[in-house]
Amino acid sequence: MSEIAERLRAALGPRVHTDAETLAAHRRDHWALAQIHDLLGRGAPNPAAVVRPESAEEVATVLRLCRDARVPVIPFGGGSGVCGAVEARPDAVVLSTRGLDGLVSLDSRDLRAAFRAGTMGGEAERRVERDGLTLGHWPQSIELSTVGGWVATRAAGQFSTSYGAIEDLVLGLEVVLPDGKILRSAETPRAAAGPDLRQIFMGSEGTLGVVSEVTFSLRPQPEARRLAAFHFTSLDDGLEALRRFMRVGWRPPVVRLYDERESRRQFAAECPEGRCLLLLVHEGPSAAVAAEAAGVAALCSAEHGEAADPKAVERWLEHRNQVPSFRELNERGLVVDTIEVAATWARVLPLYHAVIASLRELPEVALASAHSSHSYRSGTNLYFTFAARVEDRSRMPEVYRECWRRAMHATAASGGGIAHHHGIGRIRREHLRGELGDAGISLLRALKRSLDPDDLLNPGVLLPDPAPNAP
Amino acid sequence: MSEIAERLRAALGPRVHTDAETLAAHRRDHWALAQIHDLLGRGAPNPAAVVRPESAEEVATVLRLCRDARVPVIPFGGGSGVCGAVEARPDAVVLSTRGLDGLVSLDSRDLRAAFRAGTMGGEAERRVERDGLTLGHWPQSIELSTVGGWVATRAAGQFSTSYGAIEDLVLGLEVVLPDGKILRSAETPRAAAGPDLRQIFMGSEGTLGVVSEVTFSLRPQPEARRLAAFHFTSLDDGLEALRRFMRVGWRPPVVRLYDERESRRQFAAECPEGRCLLLLVHEGPSAAVAAEAAGVAALCSAEHGEAADPKAVERWLEHRNQVPSFRELNERGLVVDTIEVAATWARVLPLYHAVIASLRELPEVALASAHSSHSYRSGTNLYFTFAARVEDRSRMPEVYRECWRRAMHATAASGGGIAHHHGIGRIRREHLRGELGDAGISLLRALKRSLDPDDLLNPGVLLPDPAPNAP
Repeated sequence: MSEIAERLRAALGPRVHTDAETLAAHRRDHWALAQIHDLLGRGAPNPAAVVRPESAEEVATVLRLCRDARVPVIPFGGGSGVCGAVEARPDAVVLSTRGLDGLVSLDSRDLRAAFRAGTMGGEAERRVERDGLTLGHWPQSIELSTVGGWVATRAAGQFSTSYGAIEDLVLGLEVVLPDGKILRSAETPRAAAGPDLRQIFMGSEGTLGVVSEVTFSLRPQPEARRLAAFHFTSLDDGLEALRRFMRVGWRPPVVRLYDERESRRQFAAECPEGRCLLLLVHEGPSAAVAAEAAGVAALCSAEHGEAADPKAVERWLEHRNQVPSFRELNERGLVVDTIEVAATWARVLPLYHAVIASLRELPEVALASAHSSHSYRSGTNLYFTFAARVEDRSRMPEVYRECWRRAMHATAASGGGIAHHHGIGRIRREHLRGELGDAGISLLRALKRSLDPDDLLNPGVLLPDPAPNAP
Repeated sequence: MSEIAERLRAALGPRVHTDAETLAAHRRDHWALAQIHDLLGRGAPNPAAVVRPESAEEVATVLRLCRDARVPVIPFGGGSGVCGAVEARPDAVVLSTRGLDGLVSLDSRDLRAAFRAGTMGGEAERRVERDGLTLGHWPQSIELSTVGGWVATRAAGQFSTSYGAIEDLVLGLEVVLPDGKILRSAETPRAAAGPDLRQIFMGSEGTLGVVSEVTFSLRPQPEARRLAAFHFTSLDDGLEALRRFMRVGWRPPVVRLYDERESRRQFAAECPEGRCLLLLVHEGPSAAVAAEAAGVAALCSAEHGEAADPKAVERWLEHRNQVPSFRELNERGLVVDTIEVAATWARVLPLYHAVIASLRELPEVALASAHSSHSYRSGTNLYFTFAARVEDRSRMPEVYRECWRRAMHATAASGGGIAHHHGIGRIRREHLRGELGDAGISLLRALKRSLDPDDLLNPGVLLPDPAPNAP
C-alpha cells in the first residue's frame, strides 16, 4: 500500500479502498478516447487509492492530508463524464463522492431539497417525485451521474429550454475548498451581496473544490403535458421556427430539432425522407399549455412546418436515457462520439454546415449529423454525432482527435461557443483559450492559483497548458 | 494639480478633469448617510482627479498609471447607488464611465444589443425600443444609472419576476481588469466552458475590475399587457397567494405586494383601510396573458383576495421611476432610507415582523413598513422603508446606522439574505461575513488579492475589514 493510502487509512479507516477492482473502476470516466485507449491496451492506470468520504469534514480531511503529502486528488462522481475530466494516475488519490449519499432536507412548501453531492440523479429525482415535485433536470445520464457532478460539469438537462440548466436550478451549494475550508452559500432566492460565489464551482470540473451538497429549487410536477411534432423541408426553416417562438416568449421544456440525417436515422416511421423533425413537450398549467401549443404550432406552420405523429415524442421520451456503449462499435473499428456546441441564431446554420463539411473532408468519417436540443432567446445549441471507420486500430486515437480538432476549429471560426453542456475535461482544454481569450485564461489561472496553489486538485483538466500553443 | 492628475493628463489629455465642480460632482453616490454627512458639513472630500476615458484601452491606461503610482481608483457610473459604494478621498482618482457612451451594435434578429458601459439606462432602453425591442430591465433608477452600473451592483429591475435580474439579461461582458488586461466573454447563449467568469464581476461593485461594455439578450416588446390588482386581509394571505402562483409557474413580470401601512400611504384611493394591496402586470403573447391573468386571479381569490381597481397599477407605472430626494427630509430632522432583503417563503413573514419590531423599538423611529417586489419559486424579497425623527442633528448618523444594524441583524437572525438588489457598498460590508460565512469571505478576499493585490480598486467597499468584528 502506498504511503498516502496508509495516511488516509490511519485517518479515515474503511473509507479508503485499495483493492484492484475498486481501483480499476475509478480509472476513468466515459470519455470515448479513454475507452479506445482501453481497447488498445493502453488505458489509464489505477490510482494509488480510492477514498469515499461520508461527510464534508471527511472530504476536508482527504484534501488536507493529500495537500500535506503533495498528492493529486481526482474527484469522481458517477463517472459519466464524456470529455475526460477523470483520468487516474498511479500517484493520485481518487475521491469518490458516492459516500455522500441521500437526502438532507426537503421542504415542499418552499420547493427546496438538499441532497448530498454523491446522490445519483435518478434517485434524487424519484425522491422528490414522491412528494409531487421534480428537480426539472434531465440529463441523458440521469441514472449514471450524481447531483454534485451536474454542478461540477455545468450540466444542462433535456427539459432546459423552459426549466433552465443547472445554474438556474441550484438554490444553494456546499463546497469543500482545496485548503479544507467548507463554503456554504446563503439560503436566499436571490442576492446582490458581491459576486455569486457558487458560479465559481459550477463548471470547475473538480479543479477548484469538491461539491459536497446541492440544494435545488424544485418545481411541482406540471398539471398538464402535451406532446407535439412537426417536420420541415430544411434545417433552416426549422431553426427559424425555433427562433420565432423563442423570441415571443414561448418556452416548451423540450425543443429538439433533428437534421435530415438524424430524422431519417431515428424517426423514419414519423418523418418523411429529406425532412427535419421537431419534437416538442409543453408542460405547465393546462391553460398555459393550450396557449403555448397553439402559439408554437402557428409559428411552425408559418415556416412551412407540417404536423407529424407525436408518437415520435413518446418514443423519444421512453428511450431518452439510454446511454450508448462505444465498446462494441470500437471493436468493429468505428470511432464514435458526440460534440455539443452553441451559437447565436445568425451563426448557427453556417456553423452546422462548417462542422459537417470539415468532418466529412476526413476520408475515415462515415457519418456526421446534428440536432438542436436546448434553445434560448439569442440562439441554440447543436449536438453533433460523428462516426469514423478506422482500419488500423492504432490510428483510432489520432482519427478521434482529428475529428474533435476539426469540429472545434469550425465552431470557433463560425463564432460559436465550443462547449454547451458536456464541459471541457481533457479533450477541449487546448481550445479553451479561443473561447475565454488570453484575459479569461489568465483570470481562470489566477483563480486556480489562489485556491489550489500546488495544482493538486484534478491536474491536467480544464485549464490549458501554460504555453499558448501547447498541445 | 496632484502628481497623479499630471501623469494622467500627460497620457489622456482632455479626459482628465480637476475643476472644482467636476470633482465635487463625483464625491459620492446617493447613499442616504453620505447625504446626511453633507448636511452636517462633513461630507466626502473631492478626489484628486476625475478621469473620463472613452475606450476600454483608455480605461486600461488609467488603471495601469494608477497602479504604478499606487493611487486608488474609484469607478463611478451614474452615481445612483444607495449603499455608499462611491465615496471619494483626496488621494484617489474617480474613473467616470460616462465617456464610454452609446450603442456598439444591435442585432434585432438575434435579440442582442451591446452598449458601452457608461450609457445611461433610459437611453439604452429607448434605443432598443426604436426597433420594437426592450432590455426588460427597469430599476427605479433607470434614468440615473448606467448599464455598467447595473452589472457592477448586480441590479434587479421592477419587471424581474418574469424577465429576471441583471445576471439573466446579460449575454456578454467586456471588463478591464486591474492590471489593464481586457476580458471579453464569448458570444454564445450558454456554455459549459469552466466557471462563468462574467459572474465574478456582477456585484463586484468596482473592486475587481471596470465593466466597459455590456451585451444584452433582448426581448421583443410584448404583444399584450394586462394590469390587475387585488387586496388581502393580511400580508400573510397575500404572500401565500404569491407563493401559490409562483409555484405553479405563472410569471407576471410585475408582482408587488404592499403591507397595510404602505397600501394605506400610497394607495388609499384603491385599497380599503387595513388591507394589503397587490399590483400585477401580465405581459406576453395575448393568449398567454389571458391564461396567466385567469390563473393568478383564481389563486388570489383562493387566498381571500378581492379585486381592486387596476388604476392603482397605472398610477404606479406612471410614477415608478421617481427617485425621492432625502435632502428636504433631512433638513426637517428626518432620517429616511430603504433596505431590501430576501428570504425563502417560510421565513419571509417572521422576517417581516422581526425587522419591523426591531426598528420600532427605537424611540426615534416614526415609520417602518415594507413591500415585496421580486418573487421566485423559493421565496421573495422585502423592501423596507423607515423614517426616524432626530431632534439633535449630530445624532442623525448614529440613528441611521442603528436602524440599519437592527434591520440587518433581524434579517440574518430570521435566516434571510441581507441584500436583494442594492448591493453591499459601505453600509452592509460589516454584515457580509454573516451572509457569506468565513469561507466565503476568505474566497472573496483571495479573488480580490489575486486580481488587485495592492487593494487599489475601490478600497473600503464590499469586503469587510480583515478582523471579524471590525466596525
